Amino acid sequence: MKNTIGTSVCLTLFGESHGGEIGAVLDGMAPGIPVREEEIAAQLARRRPQGDLSTARREADAFRIVSGVYGGYTTGAPIAILIPNSDTRSADYAAVRDVPRPGHADYTARCKYHGFEDSRGGGHFSGRLTAPLVAAGAIARRALVQRNIVIGTHIAECAGVKDRALDAANHDLLSLAAADFPVLDEKAGERMRAAIRAAKAAGDSVGGILETVVTGVPAGVGEPWFDSVEGDLARALFAIPAVKGVEFGDGFGFAALTGSRANDPLRITDGVVAHTANHNGGINGGVTNGMPLLYRVCVKPTPTVGIPQGSVDLKTGENAVSCPGGRHDPAILHRACPVVDAVSALVLCDLLALRFGTDWLCGERK
Amino acid sequence: MKNTIGTSVCLTLFGESHGGEIGAVLDGMAPGIPVREEEIAAQLARRRPQGDLSTARREADAFRIVSGVYGGYTTGAPIAILIPNSDTRSADYAAVRDVPRPGHADYTARCKYHGFEDSRGGGHFSGRLTAPLVAAGAIARRALVQRNIVIGTHIAECAGVKDRALDAANHDLLSLAAADFPVLDEKAGERMRAAIRAAKAAGDSVGGILETVVTGVPAGVGEPWFDSVEGDLARALFAIPAVKGVEFGDGFGFAALTGSRANDPLRITDGVVAHTANHNGGINGGVTNGMPLLYRVCVKPTPTVGIPQGSVDLKTGENAVSCPGGRHDPAILHRACPVVDAVSALVLCDLLALRFGTDWLCGERK
Amino acid sequence: MKNTIGTSVCLTLFGESHGGEIGAVLDGMAPGIPVREEEIAAQLARRRPQGDLSTARREADAFRIVSGVYGGYTTGAPIAILIPNSDTRSADYAAVRDVPRPGHADYTARCKYHGFEDSRGGGHFSGRLTAPLVAAGAIARRALVQRNIVIGTHIAECAGVKDRALDAANHDLLSLAAADFPVLDEKAGERMRAAIRAAKAAGDSVGGILETVVTGVPAGVGEPWFDSVEGDLARALFAIPAVKGVEFGDGFGFAALTGSRANDPLRITDGVVAHTANHNGGINGGVTNGMPLLYRVCVKPTPTVGIPQGSVDLKTGENAVSCPGGRHDPAILHRACPVVDAVSALVLCDLLALRFGTDWLCGERK
Amino acid sequence: MKNTIGTSVCLTLFGESHGGEIGAVLDGMAPGIPVREEEIAAQLARRRPQGDLSTARREADAFRIVSGVYGGYTTGAPIAILIPNSDTRSADYAAVRDVPRPGHADYTARCKYHGFEDSRGGGHFSGRLTAPLVAAGAIARRALVQRNIVIGTHIAECAGVKDRALDAANHDLLSLAAADFPVLDEKAGERMRAAIRAAKAAGDSVGGILETVVTGVPAGVGEPWFDSVEGDLARALFAIPAVKGVEFGDGFGFAALTGSRANDPLRITDGVVAHTANHNGGINGGVTNGMPLLYRVCVKPTPTVGIPQGSVDLKTGENAVSCPGGRHDPAILHRACPVVDAVSALVLCDLLALRFGTDWLCGERK
Repeated sequence: MKNTIGTSVCLTLFGESHGGEIGAVLDGMAPGIPVREEEIAAQLARRRPQGDLSTARREADAFRIVSGVYGGYTTGAPIAILIPNSDTRSADYAAVRDVPRPGHADYTARCKYHGFEDSRGGGHFSGRLTAPLVAAGAIARRALVQRNIVIGTHIAECAGVKDRALDAANHDLLSLAAADFPVLDEKAGERMRAAIRAAKAAGDSVGGILETVVTGVPAGVGEPWFDSVEGDLARALFAIPAVKGVEFGDGFGFAALTGSRANDPLRITDGVVAHTANHNGGINGGVTNGMPLLYRVCVKPTPTVGIPQGSVDLKTGENAVSCPGGRHDPAILHRACPVVDAVSALVLCDLLALRFGTDWLCGERK
Repeated sequence: MKNTIGTSVCLTLFGESHGGEIGAVLDGMAPGIPVREEEIAAQLARRRPQGDLSTARREADAFRIVSGVYGGYTTGAPIAILIPNSDTRSADYAAVRDVPRPGHADYTARCKYHGFEDSRGGGHFSGRLTAPLVAAGAIARRALVQRNIVIGTHIAECAGVKDRALDAANHDLLSLAAADFPVLDEKAGERMRAAIRAAKAAGDSVGGILETVVTGVPAGVGEPWFDSVEGDLARALFAIPAVKGVEFGDGFGFAALTGSRANDPLRITDGVVAHTANHNGGINGGVTNGMPLLYRVCVKPTPTVGIPQGSVDLKTGENAVSCPGGRHDPAILHRACPVVDAVSALVLCDLLALRFGTDWLCGERK
Repeated sequence: MKNTIGTSVCLTLFGESHGGEIGAVLDGMAPGIPVREEEIAAQLARRRPQGDLSTARREADAFRIVSGVYGGYTTGAPIAILIPNSDTRSADYAAVRDVPRPGHADYTARCKYHGFEDSRGGGHFSGRLTAPLVAAGAIARRALVQRNIVIGTHIAECAGVKDRALDAANHDLLSLAAADFPVLDEKAGERMRAAIRAAKAAGDSVGGILETVVTGVPAGVGEPWFDSVEGDLARALFAIPAVKGVEFGDGFGFAALTGSRANDPLRITDGVVAHTANHNGGINGGVTNGMPLLYRVCVKPTPTVGIPQGSVDLKTGENAVSCPGGRHDPAILHRACPVVDAVSALVLCDLLALRFGTDWLCGERK
Repeated sequence: MKNTIGTSVCLTLFGESHGGEIGAVLDGMAPGIPVREEEIAAQLARRRPQGDLSTARREADAFRIVSGVYGGYTTGAPIAILIPNSDTRSADYAAVRDVPRPGHADYTARCKYHGFEDSRGGGHFSGRLTAPLVAAGAIARRALVQRNIVIGTHIAECAGVKDRALDAANHDLLSLAAADFPVLDEKAGERMRAAIRAAKAAGDSVGGILETVVTGVPAGVGEPWFDSVEGDLARALFAIPAVKGVEFGDGFGFAALTGSRANDPLRITDGVVAHTANHNGGINGGVTNGMPLLYRVCVKPTPTVGIPQGSVDLKTGENAVSCPGGRHDPAILHRACPVVDAVSALVLCDLLALRFGTDWLCGERK
């Protein structure tokens, strides 16, 4: 299962940056979930290159759903979503074939596929494939929202500029899930955007950290060992290109805490058990504890930069200089927000369907 | 598949802290790998409680292999490893059943298993189950070593004390893999141990960060999206109790870098392509690039502390104080080193068997 | 994994009989396998309704491959194949929604999907979805042929008329794999076709038995217990609509044999070990023994018939008569031949890739 | 996943005929299912060699459950079951190592494991491993019975002698599930036993057909394509040594029917929809339709016979005669009944847990 993830709710991804069409098959979703094209379009718009913060490549993302949806609702059968590639300029990438770009997958693709890979625009490794992932995720999010499970992601840090911490209890996650550049502190957001523009001007790029909160997940979901909520989410999050770190709750910050400070005490109020802190990000022993899920991913700076870098000409066997001429993003951090949301929604639908059965997410009954 | 991991080389884990026996089934290992009981015992010894740094519980870890090994070699059939529980004092844990310990899985276990769980000593969630994991991992490590793939882990940080950075090219990883308290800088190690003893004296606990290097993995292993090397390793690493963060290469440090500094240039020398830096931890696009794998996990402080903490009596529905009287570790960080090694070895054997076939790891031919 | 099969080489299926497009994603195929559109078209033609033996529905099967193939070769990335639905007459099926057709999946679909299913033309359960399966299988067959592994299926029995037994050593399997109505004894074939026409005239339908031979599979492929060659093939074969029985070698005929007659003796000739009989169909203990694989599937008569049958009106809750007016096949047996071949090819590619690695099927090296 | 089956409820099998212990890990069972050792022992007794119908090997089958059961109930954690091997006489099998027994897996094991396999008594391929399968299945059966799902298997045919057909509505399946030699017609049973004794006297063996009925499975379970109830059951049934054919409902008998006779009409009575026939064995389109599941497996004659057979000496490379001196069964058909029941119970628990969630099988709530 190389391009498929999930056990009960599964996603299969296909396509190349400059191929005919890219797409995804979302299988195992409950029947009866309303599918609204404008919701999917809205999430795709968040992922799309934005103004002067992004590559000049303009992707229409004119998706179509060719199966699994009938009369506006999911049928229970696999949902195939297709997105044609339009604004491709393959000539830009001609040089890439033999001179791998540092930080990209060009060289590893060659080692794995022996030169048969479609290397144009990063081929199957391209971030372009996150578009169908986001489209499928939008359907999963709708299913979760009907169960009062809401996912929100903000840019916690970009180019050294930090956003305010997210307090799940006091923030409207749905507004985050609608924002193009989701931050809690708009001033920090402006400084981040300035840093991105500065990197662009310098022919360079920047990375950062995204923080995600999920509210409404019932306690008792996930498994102790290999299907821990952390493990399943991490596996999916590391599939997102450029993600190189994943942490839950206090994450790497736990290294500086003592046990007495790291634990989350419990308290009962009007018969309802809750925790009075959330250092563990809503997960103990791999299983949800009823608190909001809280996790952070690190997105590395876009590897394509305008600055020449050392590489190798695999045809001649000589050292060479890589200086790709294609259109690129000075940052993909903000564009990764809807991808993190989508991947999270897909994994949670899977965990919930495994725990409570395939009908639990079913919207209404006919 | 709740307690099973892997696709071609698989591990299934079972047991409870105070049950009859704990164990693991390691399936899919190539035939012909020499199995040396002393190697397994040596790794189990590293995981065992150590002197004044650990709990007073003394585990003999008298493992036995009841299948899959014949005449000193793996047969290709599943290898079942069993370890009896001996030094259990269940009375210590009587209170735990109704008053969940903060930071532990007691409450999530109750939500998931409705009170049928064996809660003694953490039951199935107990770190005790890492013993069979380590034993199985020792067999996997032997298979890898025969292919010149070596794994080493050191304590990069403990209670705020940092070790030297690990330079894969200039360090003997096998000696790390033999050490009880693996550090590069022995002085730092002493300060770490002092901090652990201080925490113990205060009835508290500390956590830290482990750093792992794997040399010798060929380029071209792993998959672009959902079976990325990062994703597969992370899923397994998050199964280790107390791990709350995983990062590859520069990990969260990428947030502070620009693209031109974050990329790893390539260089050809005598016909051999290599990278001149390793920010990406040996992985691009989810696939190995031939450089050493490099990753770090954060281990939270042991949740059991001697300091009273707020909890809930699930029987009476009243707020309560949790102050568990069992024997515990002021730190599990150093004991987690062989577990990280074991889990890494198992995942790598699986990825290599998928890529190169089930015989690739086969030691010799009869 | 509901609509996905395979571990290393995987297939995901999607679409509905009267939906926008149907298709499949074939993932994990080695890079470098030549993809010839005419080979795929030829297999699709075999599956297509034929002359007076079939439904009047005319399917163009104008497939397109939108990913995973570049410059005429597989790239190693997932191969998405799409086929638009064209000649659909949904009005024919309007009645089906509330009055399930006996022998079809209409009622079970309702029980499973609560009325959200797309019931037009059988929806996702339709035999129409075998078209993308056949297209994907054609690529897998090409990969196998390059390794001298050849699959052939003939109609062993149809409406009581039996074909000659297949002797793998003395028959050209490739010619079977090209035939529209593959039989060894053309006279038997004529009697079969006459029986199909007679059934059609009577508004009824017939079934039969298909027999498959695979030559060239090396010994030592498959697993002793749950991934036996028999089990993996059977699971895939039972996915083909209307297949209700699968047997290997002498199959149910073993019930009438004694052990001394059922065993296959071994013999060595010029250093090559072979069996002097093939009662076991090339498989012992779930693992291939080097003899041709031999198996048979039973295909039940097409459930749609022109004769009124007892059913239920799920809307009114009254008993009703089902007499569907759509266009149907008096037999699907011959059309199932390329589907059995396709499914067999996919399973064998998976088993071989698991055993020998993902590159074993790789055609050439660039 | 070589020795593991299932998705939500999983079984992992390990051990060799003459190794230390054999066993199974049953994972994913709901918590709260009562585990009665006498029920497990009763099923193991049915599988054990019986009087003069079986091998002289006497297996105590003194199983112990070392995890996953606490206070008499499943905990939800993996259940490890261990059975020591006792009455092993390995000398009997010394010759087997180099001269493979026809009809056995000796030769395929050699091809697969290169001589590292433990060949004593068939090693990991031995029917002996069905003991832990039966023990695990007994727990699964208890879970199903609490949900009014009952499984019964009888010997439909043995050595040419046929039993009466099983009418699910009018037979006490639980009594079948308790019988050592389950037949409906005791006279037929006596003739079968006489035939087995005659085969034994002749140094030969016989096979036959088992027929299984499952009542109480709700409609709407299973998946249209690759996780069809037929496919999932068949994959598991083919794991049972000597099973070479599986058919559902009329199975291969469909080849002789027309569509109008093969379909099962529906009828509503007092608001309850049912089918008035069960040609399809309770499954349409891979999904249960509410009727009893009905299927048959063919068990080939025991391959070990006292009559010399042609084989090969793999050491000398010469032709040889195989005439194994070990203790063997003239028939394993009757002993396979509890194995078919066990495997069926495990697959059904998995399908039900996937459909309705992991708690559906939960017995009571504490």
